[in-house]
Amino acid sequence: MTDHQHRLPAGPVDLSALETNTAPGFDGGKKKGKAALFALGDDLSTLQERLYAEGKGGSQRRILLVLQGMDTSGKGGVLRKTVGLVDPQGVRITSFKAPTDEEKEHDFLWRIRRALPQQGIVGVFDRSHYEDVLIARVRGFAPPAEIERRYDAINDFERELVEGGTTIVKCMLHISAEEQKTRLLARLDDRTKYWKFNPGDIDERKKWASYREAYEIALERTNTEHAPWHVIPSDKKWYRNLTIGNLLHDTLKAMRPRWPEADFDIEAERKRLTAEAPTR
Amino acid sequence: MTDHQHRLPAGPVDLSALETNTAPGFDGGKKKGKAALFALGDDLSTLQERLYAEGKGGSQRRILLVLQGMDTSGKGGVLRKTVGLVDPQGVRITSFKAPTDEEKEHDFLWRIRRALPQQGIVGVFDRSHYEDVLIARVRGFAPPAEIERRYDAINDFERELVEGGTTIVKCMLHISAEEQKTRLLARLDDRTKYWKFNPGDIDERKKWASYREAYEIALERTNTEHAPWHVIPSDKKWYRNLTIGNLLHDTLKAMRPRWPEADFDIEAERKRLTAEAPTR
Repeated sequence: MTDHQHRLPAGPVDLSALETNTAPGFDGGKKKGKAALFALGDDLSTLQERLYAEGKGGSQRRILLVLQGMDTSGKGGVLRKTVGLVDPQGVRITSFKAPTDEEKEHDFLWRIRRALPQQGIVGVFDRSHYEDVLIARVRGFAPPAEIERRYDAINDFERELVEGGTTIVKCMLHISAEEQKTRLLARLDDRTKYWKFNPGDIDERKKWASYREAYEIALERTNTEHAPWHVIPSDKKWYRNLTIGNLLHDTLKAMRPRWPEADFDIEAERKRLTAEAPTR
Repeated sequence: MTDHQHRLPAGPVDLSALETNTAPGFDGGKKKGKAALFALGDDLSTLQERLYAEGKGGSQRRILLVLQGMDTSGKGGVLRKTVGLVDPQGVRITSFKAPTDEEKEHDFLWRIRRALPQQGIVGVFDRSHYEDVLIARVRGFAPPAEIERRYDAINDFERELVEGGTTIVKCMLHISAEEQKTRLLARLDDRTKYWKFNPGDIDERKKWASYREAYEIALERTNTEHAPWHVIPSDKKWYRNLTIGNLLHDTLKAMRPRWPEADFDIEAERKRLTAEAPTR
C-alpha cells in the first residue's frame, strides 16, 4: 500500500478539522479533474485485467474497496464514475441495506463474508460492516458491549482477509452538513431525482453530530496498519471520484499483478491448431 | 421489442448462409464504429438509470441479455466494451461455467433462476441455459429425450419471465471457423493472452460441425415471438460490440422507462429541511 495523501494518521480523529470542500494535490478544476479521471481509465483497466488473469492463474490476491459516508456523500457516484471505468467482469459490487431477518440471526460479519470478492476480483462495498458500528451505535440497534466488541472483531476480520491475499482500501467520503442539505434539496427540485429521496434521510440528518462522533470513534479504532482509512474530501464530486480513482490505481500499481505463465506447451498447441483438418 | 436487422426469421436455420465477416447497416469502419459505440454511452446510461429508478419505484420491468457463441466469439469483449458503458450498479453479470456437483443435482434451470436480474436491473448471461442444449447435446451430457424436453422447457421458462416483466434479448455471436483459428493462434502468440487459452478449446473446435448443428436446432426451436434470437456477425469485433450496444439501446428506448413520481410531500419535505436547526 502506498502512503496516500488522504490516509488518516493514527490517533484520535476530529472530522470537523478535516476540510470537505477542498481539492488538495490537484492543479485544476472540475473540467481538468474529470479529464484526469477519464485518462486513468485505460491504465486502470489493464492493471485490473492483469489482476484478474493472475487470479485465473491461481494467485489469491484481490482488492476490497470499502465506501462509507453519510447519505448523499456520493457512494453511488463513485460506483458510476470511478468503478465504472473498470471492466465489469472484474468487479463485484455489493450494496448493503438494512439487514434482513435472516441476516439478523447471524453475527454481523456473516453477510459481509458472503459478499467477499473472489481471487483476482475488485470487490466494492457500498456501505459495509462499518454500518454495524455506525447506525447501530447511533440508533442503539445493539447494546454498548456488543458495539465495543465489534471494533476488535472488525480488525481481526480485516487482518484475516489481508493475510489471505486481500488488499483493503477503506474510504470515508467526507461531506459537510451544509453540502448534504444542498444535495437533499436538489433531490426535491428535480423530478429525475425524486426516487433517490427518502424522508427518513432528514430524520437521520438530525442526528448528524451523533453520526460524526460514531464515525470518529470507528475511524480511530479501526485505522490499522493492515487496513488503514482514507478520508476523502467529498464536497466536490469530481475531486472525490478522481481521488478514489487515483487510490485504486496506486493500489493496483503497487500490487504489480503479473500475467500468468502458460501452463501448456505453446508449440505443441500451435501445431495442433495449424495441422488440423479443415473444419467446415 | 423493435424489429431488428439481425433478428432471426422464423423457420429452419442455416448458419453457414449467414455471413460472419460483414458490417451491414453501418456506413464506416472500425474507427467510426468504435466512436459510434462510445457516443451511445451517455444515452444508454440515462435510459438504464431510468429503468433502475422505475424498479425502485416498484416497476417489475427488467432486461435479460443472453450472450451465446463459440469459444473466442467475444462474449467477454461485449461485457467489457458494451455492457461496460452502463453504470455497474444497474447491471448484474453472470458467467456460467460447467455446472457444479450441486447444480447437477437440480434441474438445468435451477442455477439460471438464481441468477435472474432483479427489477430495474439489466441482467447479462455470459453463456446460459442454452449450454444445456448445446454442449450437452454435442457431448451427450444428457440423453436425447432430456435434450428434447429442454427446448420446450426453455420456451416456457422464457415466457414466464416475459410475463413477469422481463425483456429478453438473445444474441448469438456468429464467427467463422477460420476466425476462431486466428483468435486461438493470437492467444498463443501473446503472453498477455496465455491465460485465456485452454487446450480443451482445440478439442471442442474439432466438433465445430456438431456445434453448428446444435446451434441451428436450438436457434430454430427457441426463436419465439416472446424471446427471439439475434445472430450477430462477429468476425469484426467493433461491429459486434456496436450492434449489441444498438440492440440494448433500442430495447431500452422501446421500453420507455419513466422516472417514478414522488411518494412523499415535496413541499413538506422541503420545509423540514430548510426550517431545521443548524446541524453542527
